[in-house]
Amino acid sequence: MLTTYDYGSLGREDLQRLTARNTDPNNTIQEVVHDIIQQVQKQGDSILRDYAAKFDKVQLDKLYLDEQDIDELASTIHRDQQRALEIAFQNIHRFHSIQLKRERAVETMPGVKCWREIRPIEKVGLYIPGGSAVLPSTLLMLGIPAKIAGCKEIVVCSPPQANGKINGFVAYCLKLLKINRIYLVGGAQAVAAMAFGTQTIPKVDKIFGPGNQFVTKAKSLIQGLTNCSIDMPAGPSEVLVIADGSATAAFVAADLLAQAEHGVDSQAVLVATSSEIVDRVNAELASQLEVLPRKALAAKAMENSYAVVVANLEEAMQFSNEYAPEHLILETDQWESLTRYISNAGSVFLGHLTPESAGDYASGTNHTLPTSGYARSYSGVSVDSFVKKITFQHINETGLQQIGSTVEILAELEGLQAHKNAISIRKSETN
Amino acid sequence: MLTTYDYGSLGREDLQRLTARNTDPNNTIQEVVHDIIQQVQKQGDSILRDYAAKFDKVQLDKLYLDEQDIDELASTIHRDQQRALEIAFQNIHRFHSIQLKRERAVETMPGVKCWREIRPIEKVGLYIPGGSAVLPSTLLMLGIPAKIAGCKEIVVCSPPQANGKINGFVAYCLKLLKINRIYLVGGAQAVAAMAFGTQTIPKVDKIFGPGNQFVTKAKSLIQGLTNCSIDMPAGPSEVLVIADGSATAAFVAADLLAQAEHGVDSQAVLVATSSEIVDRVNAELASQLEVLPRKALAAKAMENSYAVVVANLEEAMQFSNEYAPEHLILETDQWESLTRYISNAGSVFLGHLTPESAGDYASGTNHTLPTSGYARSYSGVSVDSFVKKITFQHINETGLQQIGSTVEILAELEGLQAHKNAISIRKSETN
Repeated sequence: MLTTYDYGSLGREDLQRLTARNTDPNNTIQEVVHDIIQQVQKQGDSILRDYAAKFDKVQLDKLYLDEQDIDELASTIHRDQQRALEIAFQNIHRFHSIQLKRERAVETMPGVKCWREIRPIEKVGLYIPGGSAVLPSTLLMLGIPAKIAGCKEIVVCSPPQANGKINGFVAYCLKLLKINRIYLVGGAQAVAAMAFGTQTIPKVDKIFGPGNQFVTKAKSLIQGLTNCSIDMPAGPSEVLVIADGSATAAFVAADLLAQAEHGVDSQAVLVATSSEIVDRVNAELASQLEVLPRKALAAKAMENSYAVVVANLEEAMQFSNEYAPEHLILETDQWESLTRYISNAGSVFLGHLTPESAGDYASGTNHTLPTSGYARSYSGVSVDSFVKKITFQHINETGLQQIGSTVEILAELEGLQAHKNAISIRKSETN
Repeated sequence: MLTTYDYGSLGREDLQRLTARNTDPNNTIQEVVHDIIQQVQKQGDSILRDYAAKFDKVQLDKLYLDEQDIDELASTIHRDQQRALEIAFQNIHRFHSIQLKRERAVETMPGVKCWREIRPIEKVGLYIPGGSAVLPSTLLMLGIPAKIAGCKEIVVCSPPQANGKINGFVAYCLKLLKINRIYLVGGAQAVAAMAFGTQTIPKVDKIFGPGNQFVTKAKSLIQGLTNCSIDMPAGPSEVLVIADGSATAAFVAADLLAQAEHGVDSQAVLVATSSEIVDRVNAELASQLEVLPRKALAAKAMENSYAVVVANLEEAMQFSNEYAPEHLILETDQWESLTRYISNAGSVFLGHLTPESAGDYASGTNHTLPTSGYARSYSGVSVDSFVKKITFQHINETGLQQIGSTVEILAELEGLQAHKNAISIRKSETN
């Protein structure tokens, strides 16, 4: 069951240890991944076929599925499943569609007009994991903001199944997104293919998406090797649940286990205002865990997890902000008065009836979120992640007179004479 | 003078070569910088004193200047210089102050309410270069958005001068920003100190600012070693000027030279609609270069530079978008009809009277911008860079009934039973 700590008796070092994550435990794979990246850069498509044979156990004639293949696969899933994906699509679209806002121009001085305009990142790459879990929800979470942003080219890579296809759920999401091609490439090689481009796969400007340790390592390595950027550094998923006397222990336990079933390296942290709450949650954990199909995996993940007993909700918020969780669930009647104290978190779930799984799939918020304490400085994926904001400025004759001497003085004091001259030469011509 | 290429006769590979930047030419310094980072992590303040003695040739008693020191230094500069810094401060503040916008909540389904709230990144580190040029403007460009964002702790590092102080201009900017301490640490060691924290220097969540190759390398390395993030990858500064028959050759030449004087690795690219324009600019370059104090450096940088002759402004925009310049200047009467074709650029200067140096110092826009082609996927620094957007959601009983089965179906098809259970257990309790 959960190892329990008393917040009041934790020293500075204990806190650091409890809030630290196991980042990059697999430096051992660095060489393997670096080699894959180099091979893809050198050999392109041919090595992608070799890797498919080696890692995915499939001989690929062509490296992608086109519209007709996708249509066929999409038609194989049940109508209620299609309907569930459609509702998720609609909600995610609704939430993301208000995120782009035009900004007004500012006349900072008479005749000096400055503004920002939004432009889509032209070519983006979305990595959709396959393997042990198929994740159509991830395709929606990345594809919808990319479409809203107006990205011209959306390249989707996902590992092929043993039959050389993708699963019907992913295919149906491609149809909802009006994306009519998917590349059958997985792992570090998919990241490398999108970063450098191959004969078949277009080079992109930014790569998005979760993945296993090889994908994550490849994303981190290509940053130094190309000018392709990435959405954010990735680590194992995590949740922090704050529970007080108003919490239902069964709900809390269910939320902790939903996190734990993601993988053995997941972390679920309970912050409770009394040790009785922890006891009740522990009892629920034991009984709920018993009937889970991914029981072994979840039980293993629960070993990374722990509980912290705090004196009150204020202390709970302090600890949570120190931890900076990817997901934060406030299972307390008091949630409304607490939100303003939240300074570090990826996505927050409020009250007793808002489980993380709602946000994972269908409520509308994005599930691609900062882990490993990166919530201190990163936001989750949004339409913002798929655009740039370019600054523009225009200065007229009045503006030049207004701002000219200021720029000249500042250029001079920084010792940059040619900067000054770019103003002076214009002033003298327009006088 | 400028090597000139004819756009129409450039093949795919020529274009790739011309738009490629020399990224990370100094992999040789990787080991040195890695060692500095490790030493700072291990030894903290003491090694920072040793580095100050070694690199900055100064014995430091304390590693920072406080309010009184800053006041004294700030009072040594001339009133017209103070006034110029004040005007720059006001303009930059005006432009950045409209960048944070509250977003409305979206009820994606009845009873399912989702929204984003903005939170400042709590602890930020600003690196202000010293050395050959002092850059008070950089302190304004980073400090103002940090203040507007509401960052709680703003740590400023800059290398000490030989007298153990900083220059009066930087001191005056600190006063304008109401920042009452500056740490006297420069180079890779400053980045390491802010990433890990030392006895004196606080650990921060995100590091901003330009710097020499050691600073740049340190920023790229600490990303893999800590969960401290950085503003953007940095490379040499660059400008692309588009000029047609309406352009004044003297202005174009002045703008190219303003870029060139930044450093020998700077790049200035001229895209002109005729070879006559290039000839006229070349003549102006020769005469203007002659009288520059940083002549040798600018002349050397001009060797990295080139001109491309295009058939029309449409081709000019194509090339510019391929290049993705940090700074783009449109010296043409047609600028108003061209802005919508700009897809990749950091900051854009429109018309004949809008030199880049206005934006470098005082017009209001930020001068911390993506170089090396990163303008394809990065924006320049803004208030956005100093905040996170956290998603929130609240579901009530109605919402749970509305969204419940959708989440259950999606969790089931992804094989995540505990995710489904977090919904089912709530549904059964509230029925």
